[in-house]
Amino acid sequence: MDYENLKSPTEFLKSMLATLPDEAILREYETWWEAEGKAISTAVDRGGTPWLKMFDPIGERVDEILFPASYWKMLRKGYQAGSVWRAFEAGSLIPSYLLGYLTSFYDTGLYCPYTVSLSTAVPLDKYGAKEVRERFLPQLLRKDESVWQGATWMTEAKGGSDLGAGVETIAREEGMHWLLNGEKYFASNAGAELAVVAARREGAPSNVRGLSLFLLPRNREDGSLNYFIRRLKDKIGTRSVPTGEVELKESEAYLLGQPEQGIYLILEVLNISRVANSVGSVALMHRAMIEALSFAQKRIAFGKPIVEHPLLCRQFDERVSLLKGAFALAWEAVSLLNEVWRETPPYSERYHLFRVVAHLAKYWTAELAVQTAKWAMEVYGGIGVLEEFGIERWLREAMILPIWEGTPHRQILDGLEAMERKRAHELLFTHLAPLAAPQALEETAGRVEALLDLPLEERESQAEAVFRDLAVFTAETLQNRPVTSPMVS
Amino acid sequence: MDYENLKSPTEFLKSMLATLPDEAILREYETWWEAEGKAISTAVDRGGTPWLKMFDPIGERVDEILFPASYWKMLRKGYQAGSVWRAFEAGSLIPSYLLGYLTSFYDTGLYCPYTVSLSTAVPLDKYGAKEVRERFLPQLLRKDESVWQGATWMTEAKGGSDLGAGVETIAREEGMHWLLNGEKYFASNAGAELAVVAARREGAPSNVRGLSLFLLPRNREDGSLNYFIRRLKDKIGTRSVPTGEVELKESEAYLLGQPEQGIYLILEVLNISRVANSVGSVALMHRAMIEALSFAQKRIAFGKPIVEHPLLCRQFDERVSLLKGAFALAWEAVSLLNEVWRETPPYSERYHLFRVVAHLAKYWTAELAVQTAKWAMEVYGGIGVLEEFGIERWLREAMILPIWEGTPHRQILDGLEAMERKRAHELLFTHLAPLAAPQALEETAGRVEALLDLPLEERESQAEAVFRDLAVFTAETLQNRPVTSPMVS
Amino acid sequence: MDYENLKSPTEFLKSMLATLPDEAILREYETWWEAEGKAISTAVDRGGTPWLKMFDPIGERVDEILFPASYWKMLRKGYQAGSVWRAFEAGSLIPSYLLGYLTSFYDTGLYCPYTVSLSTAVPLDKYGAKEVRERFLPQLLRKDESVWQGATWMTEAKGGSDLGAGVETIAREEGMHWLLNGEKYFASNAGAELAVVAARREGAPSNVRGLSLFLLPRNREDGSLNYFIRRLKDKIGTRSVPTGEVELKESEAYLLGQPEQGIYLILEVLNISRVANSVGSVALMHRAMIEALSFAQKRIAFGKPIVEHPLLCRQFDERVSLLKGAFALAWEAVSLLNEVWRETPPYSERYHLFRVVAHLAKYWTAELAVQTAKWAMEVYGGIGVLEEFGIERWLREAMILPIWEGTPHRQILDGLEAMERKRAHELLFTHLAPLAAPQALEETAGRVEALLDLPLEERESQAEAVFRDLAVFTAETLQNRPVTSPMVS
Amino acid sequence: MDYENLKSPTEFLKSMLATLPDEAILREYETWWEAEGKAISTAVDRGGTPWLKMFDPIGERVDEILFPASYWKMLRKGYQAGSVWRAFEAGSLIPSYLLGYLTSFYDTGLYCPYTVSLSTAVPLDKYGAKEVRERFLPQLLRKDESVWQGATWMTEAKGGSDLGAGVETIAREEGMHWLLNGEKYFASNAGAELAVVAARREGAPSNVRGLSLFLLPRNREDGSLNYFIRRLKDKIGTRSVPTGEVELKESEAYLLGQPEQGIYLILEVLNISRVANSVGSVALMHRAMIEALSFAQKRIAFGKPIVEHPLLCRQFDERVSLLKGAFALAWEAVSLLNEVWRETPPYSERYHLFRVVAHLAKYWTAELAVQTAKWAMEVYGGIGVLEEFGIERWLREAMILPIWEGTPHRQILDGLEAMERKRAHELLFTHLAPLAAPQALEETAGRVEALLDLPLEERESQAEAVFRDLAVFTAETLQNRPVTSPMVS
Repeated sequence: MDYENLKSPTEFLKSMLATLPDEAILREYETWWEAEGKAISTAVDRGGTPWLKMFDPIGERVDEILFPASYWKMLRKGYQAGSVWRAFEAGSLIPSYLLGYLTSFYDTGLYCPYTVSLSTAVPLDKYGAKEVRERFLPQLLRKDESVWQGATWMTEAKGGSDLGAGVETIAREEGMHWLLNGEKYFASNAGAELAVVAARREGAPSNVRGLSLFLLPRNREDGSLNYFIRRLKDKIGTRSVPTGEVELKESEAYLLGQPEQGIYLILEVLNISRVANSVGSVALMHRAMIEALSFAQKRIAFGKPIVEHPLLCRQFDERVSLLKGAFALAWEAVSLLNEVWRETPPYSERYHLFRVVAHLAKYWTAELAVQTAKWAMEVYGGIGVLEEFGIERWLREAMILPIWEGTPHRQILDGLEAMERKRAHELLFTHLAPLAAPQALEETAGRVEALLDLPLEERESQAEAVFRDLAVFTAETLQNRPVTSPMVS
Repeated sequence: MDYENLKSPTEFLKSMLATLPDEAILREYETWWEAEGKAISTAVDRGGTPWLKMFDPIGERVDEILFPASYWKMLRKGYQAGSVWRAFEAGSLIPSYLLGYLTSFYDTGLYCPYTVSLSTAVPLDKYGAKEVRERFLPQLLRKDESVWQGATWMTEAKGGSDLGAGVETIAREEGMHWLLNGEKYFASNAGAELAVVAARREGAPSNVRGLSLFLLPRNREDGSLNYFIRRLKDKIGTRSVPTGEVELKESEAYLLGQPEQGIYLILEVLNISRVANSVGSVALMHRAMIEALSFAQKRIAFGKPIVEHPLLCRQFDERVSLLKGAFALAWEAVSLLNEVWRETPPYSERYHLFRVVAHLAKYWTAELAVQTAKWAMEVYGGIGVLEEFGIERWLREAMILPIWEGTPHRQILDGLEAMERKRAHELLFTHLAPLAAPQALEETAGRVEALLDLPLEERESQAEAVFRDLAVFTAETLQNRPVTSPMVS
Repeated sequence: MDYENLKSPTEFLKSMLATLPDEAILREYETWWEAEGKAISTAVDRGGTPWLKMFDPIGERVDEILFPASYWKMLRKGYQAGSVWRAFEAGSLIPSYLLGYLTSFYDTGLYCPYTVSLSTAVPLDKYGAKEVRERFLPQLLRKDESVWQGATWMTEAKGGSDLGAGVETIAREEGMHWLLNGEKYFASNAGAELAVVAARREGAPSNVRGLSLFLLPRNREDGSLNYFIRRLKDKIGTRSVPTGEVELKESEAYLLGQPEQGIYLILEVLNISRVANSVGSVALMHRAMIEALSFAQKRIAFGKPIVEHPLLCRQFDERVSLLKGAFALAWEAVSLLNEVWRETPPYSERYHLFRVVAHLAKYWTAELAVQTAKWAMEVYGGIGVLEEFGIERWLREAMILPIWEGTPHRQILDGLEAMERKRAHELLFTHLAPLAAPQALEETAGRVEALLDLPLEERESQAEAVFRDLAVFTAETLQNRPVTSPMVS
Repeated sequence: MDYENLKSPTEFLKSMLATLPDEAILREYETWWEAEGKAISTAVDRGGTPWLKMFDPIGERVDEILFPASYWKMLRKGYQAGSVWRAFEAGSLIPSYLLGYLTSFYDTGLYCPYTVSLSTAVPLDKYGAKEVRERFLPQLLRKDESVWQGATWMTEAKGGSDLGAGVETIAREEGMHWLLNGEKYFASNAGAELAVVAARREGAPSNVRGLSLFLLPRNREDGSLNYFIRRLKDKIGTRSVPTGEVELKESEAYLLGQPEQGIYLILEVLNISRVANSVGSVALMHRAMIEALSFAQKRIAFGKPIVEHPLLCRQFDERVSLLKGAFALAWEAVSLLNEVWRETPPYSERYHLFRVVAHLAKYWTAELAVQTAKWAMEVYGGIGVLEEFGIERWLREAMILPIWEGTPHRQILDGLEAMERKRAHELLFTHLAPLAAPQALEETAGRVEALLDLPLEERESQAEAVFRDLAVFTAETLQNRPVTSPMVS
């Protein structure tokens, strides 16, 4: 197999997609990463958790995150390339996800700021009151260094799976604002100028129905800090995005959409990031393979490069095949989301089809990312565990992927729910029918139906194997699609 | 399923073995770990790579490794418990591997010093000249704080798989000593008072036949340093064993065994550590499960502990089953090694049976260790990637396990070689026959034979799937063994 | 000069004091430090800021400081030796300061926990309501591992010099408690079970008169956390005491003494720690010298140990002389405090004499500590700046000494105030008269009087030179005292 | 006093010098530092010791220092501005020292690479054989990114004061090269493309007469590594220059000058760096003051900025005066060196005058740098010891200054030697006569003569006080010089 065209992520995208929009932009972005970005990214990873400057010397609270200057350069590069603004200018999410693939190939953690900024801009655009939208949205879409960042803060210290019980932040209406009080435990992209935040209205029920979504600026109207970063968290990877604990103290916020529909808006936010997680997982898988490849082409054992040893060669071939399937699956989620992202409740069948594909993609691509990063370390052998050579980084980066935006358990159970309630599996099989071998399709469909017929406890207990096989089946089926079909808008 | 008896490694060993030798010793050791050792181990992991004090203030080379004092206490605890000396006193490796299981359960990296010390003592005992053995062996077997440590240094910078080409260290005979010159790139337990070292005799062929095994003391006869630690390596895990680069400069050494048989002796050393790697992998798998369990019993979601959610509950059950199979497989390697460890070439059939079981065990237990550590992080969800909670440590520790003592590729190919040359698979199937379902055995045997019939390139290319299935089959078969059978000497 | 008796701090104390109480206890404590404590202290310093575990895995706030286990052993050693309880058992501060000298000799930062614990116990004993005293004081005086620690938190983010303006924490009386709200920016010994805390009563004037002193337990009556550690601070030294930012949120507290007399109580607390700072500074100066000495005796240049080179030899002699003067000055502050520590306002003349001696001692001993630590690095030459050899630690430790408990500016101006308002200089000169050469005394007194006669601005502007000379004069005069005089109670 | 013009180092230079050459260049350099360099410098300091990548993944030795990319940008900025090449283009050292002042103001450690590169270029130019000079000198003088760096490696593990005994590196002549074997313990700017290295010729006497100076390229003629970096050292400061231990193994080198004159060449190299140390010390003193000032202007206590408090105000005024004196003294060393730097032995009287001024300047400016950095921390109070605010950095940086290029002891004794042997003090007094008050000059001269009349032991023992006073006297005298006099060439 010829691996050379794998070495460029842009080249790979081109080979996988019938048409590649923004090719020149992607090439320029890739060139920058190779020339400059990779070295910055490595330094940021090695630098570990950045410092949080909480007070200035005079004792004023400032909550400034002390990344090295080159971090900001790297970060802004992606905004300027269009990770957020292009989606609004093109009326399509495709440009964002294409750039996201490259970003994640070079620095998986860095993809997070762009994703959460996009996930802030979209609900603001869809659900923000006119004056709120007009005031804040343009800040997120600037093309220069003054661009604002977004963030999406839902989870609190009691955990994120059971959001209905876990969100204890309270929102109180007062004058033109809502005032929020509470603590957000996993505040990705802490320091962002805007955040969308889940909170419970005073007196609202203590389940998911009681949740609303709010827009929270970094600064109050009077210019003072509107939220406080209590600390940044030491993570094993994704050091290119600062994750903090954020305190809300009478923090000014703006309601997005209908107060009772908060949970739908929250799930819409998750749609965007869950798909980004899938795209990012594939890119990381890709990167880890390339790193393994470049080593295996140089390391000599028993008289020849180890990439030419039959066993390793076979593993590379299998990984390439898995990569292509994973990409096809993730990109299907992208394409479907691009059809439905402007929907508001109640949703179409297409939306439910999207949801089940997104769960399958999130689940399976993250799994492959971790497995591939682990495998790449094994290819390196002993030096694979040394920090000096950096290959271990990709496992550290990968481990967030099955966890962020819902663990495998969450994907399986939420996917199951979409099948039960919305018959999403039927939509999926209909969708796949033109591409799949009829017998395989039928057999897979039979297993899913059998699962759904089980009593609840039993159904959940046995779901994983079926869900995994469904993901693999979907990936392999989509991979068979003729490349001439127009996959992107 | 009742998980509670899993929480104590001693209890688990007792449940898995027909009789548990040294139970009181194991209980005391476990008690110490719970009361004191765990906290030390955590601090050592967090402390990162220790400092190497290379010179004293006066400019004399000292090469002292600056662990915190509590490290030495933790390290000596295991020596005193009998990780090395009991093997010689009991004439059996079982006590060492039992202690090793506990050590690895609490600190996987710490198991390395004991293993390499044992792997030094055994060839010294078997192959050392009388005066060398009498002078050095008792030092390794002391029961007090003055005990010496061993080390096994084979690999050099060009890599460890192809040892025949990779060893460039040269040994020159001069008077009573051999003098060694070269560099060892992965010197585990750097600082040990004794090491066994692979080197090539001057003028010997540049393949594995040219290798001999030497005993190398830390200090020369005149008391000065006999080897130099150039630096310690920053690793993602296993920080409880210092790994360094060691320089040999006219270093005094003693030949072990016949000069032409070095490669056999090297492989015998590897036997001990490969089995230890299997035992340690199972213990780490066990530990990661326990950590996941203790969290899942406390974390509440949707109104009940998550361990009671059907999907997670099912995963725990499956992990327990995998754990028992992995243990059975690893312990079979222990038992067989305990039969053959005193053999010298030419070896018995039992030895070749051991070898194939050891390859299967090394391969499969390490794979499970990594998978389980990853899964435990997923159970923790978001806090799984935070350094603060320590669950990520088990993945960092686990990643060495597929790599140390030969990567999966190495296990597969060396296992294949044992089958081709020694018909070791036939020995295995005969060994398993009393325990296995005849049809399953036959089917498995058929697949192995079919593989072996393929041409070389094809055989290696297709080996992995067969090898993996053979490992699973062997584990499951051994797990079925009635627990009343005497598994330990 | 014979330097050997300098090498033991106990021996040095014995040589400086007419009688040495608790000699056996001091010797045992020193023996422990040499055998075990030094290695722990080094590891704690190298470990840097400990981690703060703010939440447990289930999301409950715990605010646990993750020192290595050996830290707690080291810390408790000093409590058990009697750093706090002996003062109450003996009715004298002398045993505490003697132990403090040894503590600081071995780990300057560690002296802080004992000092602030003593500084908590004393006002609790003097000013606590009966039931508060009976409930909490015994916890601070336990002799076993269950001993509680104290802490003294005054300063907030706006700075500590101008306490009247800087304290923004508000105390509100409610039922049996006062409830405190605010933030303490330099919370030494964060995590202590008890703290004395400066706060302003609701509605009280916004100057020092509005301040009161409160006792604040770690846990509320209901067992939950009563204060929160927002973060620990990264400091260049004194890593053996955790310094944090502490948040008070409706924190339960008990008023100590009269509400309007808070500032007096605060200053009494400072008396104890300021004297400890002086004793600790002398001990650090002593330690740095010993480190320099042990190097200079071994390093050979131009054919002999550098300690025998005339220039360096002279420097050692001068340092020894300065050390003895510094000790005499610091110990005078100890002796006088030991006379007046039980006084309550209004204070005696002896109290004012103590105050001026304490300001001189704090100022001058800290200055010498820094200078000597710097000089010790110069003696080491190039290796003096390498972290590997640890001599640089003493400068990092020393730099806190001029700053803690009031910068040099504060000592000078507060000393000046004591002279102006209380004629403390006259008390001092009377005190010194029996020991000083009359002419020198007269000349010094004349300079002080001339300073005090200047207009305010001019007086402050010119104060430093006079104050410094007065400190040196006092130190040299006290050093002349015949050693047979009973200096300790 | 108006402090504002102190805030710009260029402005300060302009105010101190009658004419400021290269003003536009300096302003541009300052602008870059303010806009970009300061942030890089802070990140490099915080990053700690960079990693040394000793082997590539394939096992080839590479010894690459892994600074973040922005480090190289910062480093090259100074080379391109002309830190080295301008000296050769202008035929004057003045441009280098002016740039050095700015460099040190912003990053004291970074001044080292430029200094050692200049100190490599000068002896290569003066003493290199024609073909060696033509081959290597242009590399050091390039104006673009491809510029080579130099380094000056003298000291070995036994210490640097007694170079005659301390240098154990041996040089053996073989064909066109000398081959060097040994270890350099303090290899500043490790990784430099060229180094000048002190070594002893085979069979040469074991004192300073046996030393020669060699030029050592990074790579051998065949392109392979010519020296090896064993490790980088963890230092408390100056992290902008990598300091390593370097191993010479049959390293190719070129003799500079006459073999017997090595010690003279070594001292000439030291002349350049000792003067740079003085200039750098003044700049650091300046920087620490500016940092203190900017804080003192903002921090409010007792109702006004603390810079307006009389005591602190006085301290600022005194520091400004000391700064100006220190600058005058350091710049006199620059001016004199600029007259004599092209001399070869035997040297002129002017050269000996330079030497004594250089010793005084090195001694006194380093002392002031440390004192001022310490004082700046005190001005900051409690936050002065927090790593977060960075003021502590200046003390960490400053501590190298009294040590590098000879400790205070070395300056005093070598200065004394220049007076005894060359009557350099007489040259100095003659030089100062036009500027000094006759009586003060006479009194100072009398003290020096009296010192010199003492017997050797006594003379050294008493030298420090006289030497210090002579430094202060010289600084104050030079400070009085009318600013219109042309101080620079």
